[in-house]
Amino acid sequence: MRQPVLLDRCTRLLNHGPTVLVSAQSQDRRNVMAAAWSMPLDFTPPKIAVVLDKSTHTRTLIEAEGTFVLNVPTIALAALTHRVGNTSGRDIDKFAEHDLASEPGPVTGAPLVAGCVAWLECRRLPEPHIEKTYDLFLGEVVAAWADDRVFRDGRWHFAGADDSLRTIHHVAGGHFLTIGDAVRYEQDDENP
Amino acid sequence: MRQPVLLDRCTRLLNHGPTVLVSAQSQDRRNVMAAAWSMPLDFTPPKIAVVLDKSTHTRTLIEAEGTFVLNVPTIALAALTHRVGNTSGRDIDKFAEHDLASEPGPVTGAPLVAGCVAWLECRRLPEPHIEKTYDLFLGEVVAAWADDRVFRDGRWHFAGADDSLRTIHHVAGGHFLTIGDAVRYEQDDENP
Repeated sequence: MRQPVLLDRCTRLLNHGPTVLVSAQSQDRRNVMAAAWSMPLDFTPPKIAVVLDKSTHTRTLIEAEGTFVLNVPTIALAALTHRVGNTSGRDIDKFAEHDLASEPGPVTGAPLVAGCVAWLECRRLPEPHIEKTYDLFLGEVVAAWADDRVFRDGRWHFAGADDSLRTIHHVAGGHFLTIGDAVRYEQDDENP
Repeated sequence: MRQPVLLDRCTRLLNHGPTVLVSAQSQDRRNVMAAAWSMPLDFTPPKIAVVLDKSTHTRTLIEAEGTFVLNVPTIALAALTHRVGNTSGRDIDKFAEHDLASEPGPVTGAPLVAGCVAWLECRRLPEPHIEKTYDLFLGEVVAAWADDRVFRDGRWHFAGADDSLRTIHHVAGGHFLTIGDAVRYEQDDENP
């Protein structure tokens, strides 16, 4: 079930480096694309960075509307993630095309993609130089949500849940790795 | 064994979102820090982005020298990664302190940390506004290397190797997830 995540903990939804779906809506046009290149940028207020190619329709919508969502998909959505990463939404509605449900983000109205396990609603922080030169977009996270089957108390809990809910991490050409389990190691007692 | 990685494939070393060690050297001072926030930025020439807090000694060295390395550590280095992420190298040599071997990167001379499974030698792309405002540093990758026990032919091959060689993905407070195995899913035949 989708639950709110405290803003000062929301970077934890991206820290482990999942591939994301970027969604946006402007007036009656909406779109969703895949992005392997995103990361947190700051804790308070929380910020993120994401690379959006000039050719993408999602970028056009974000520039028009100023809001977007980073959605964190799962193994169950791997095929879809690959597919929406390889088609343009300029001429089609990818949500309808791929039978993809969504609902408006409570804070921004940008679409939250159903079946994902985390959602970060963002407002674009306009930085024209790096947007133009590097396709690099920055956003402030204004609301964050996660599926409490796998994210609770500020931590991911993949081990106890259905494996289809694990996040996916793109390598190349539709080849994804899944996230694994917690690393067990001895923490240094002298430096707690 | 450390092998060169083709530059046009080097983003694959970071695509799946591992936590990295950032290392740098300027004259007789060297340092290494942990960074959960890095990502690829472009393919050709390959570029990366990484967040470096103003308080870090590594940032001072990078600003002085203009070169640095993103090293990709493993489960075997999780304790060390946590430790070098929680101490400052301003007053100590963390390599000596933590008995950490390194050798100079063949292209930049910046230290390649031993025991990692991938290394990206980078030249800073100076962008003063975003460095100052967001602690966001950009770099061009000028050489890349990987351990061929886990990265060959442009792909990660964790499944057949010792699990201690898997990459680690920080969540919070020294809690890491490890990378898992390849995601099996049916690719869409109509859209190859």
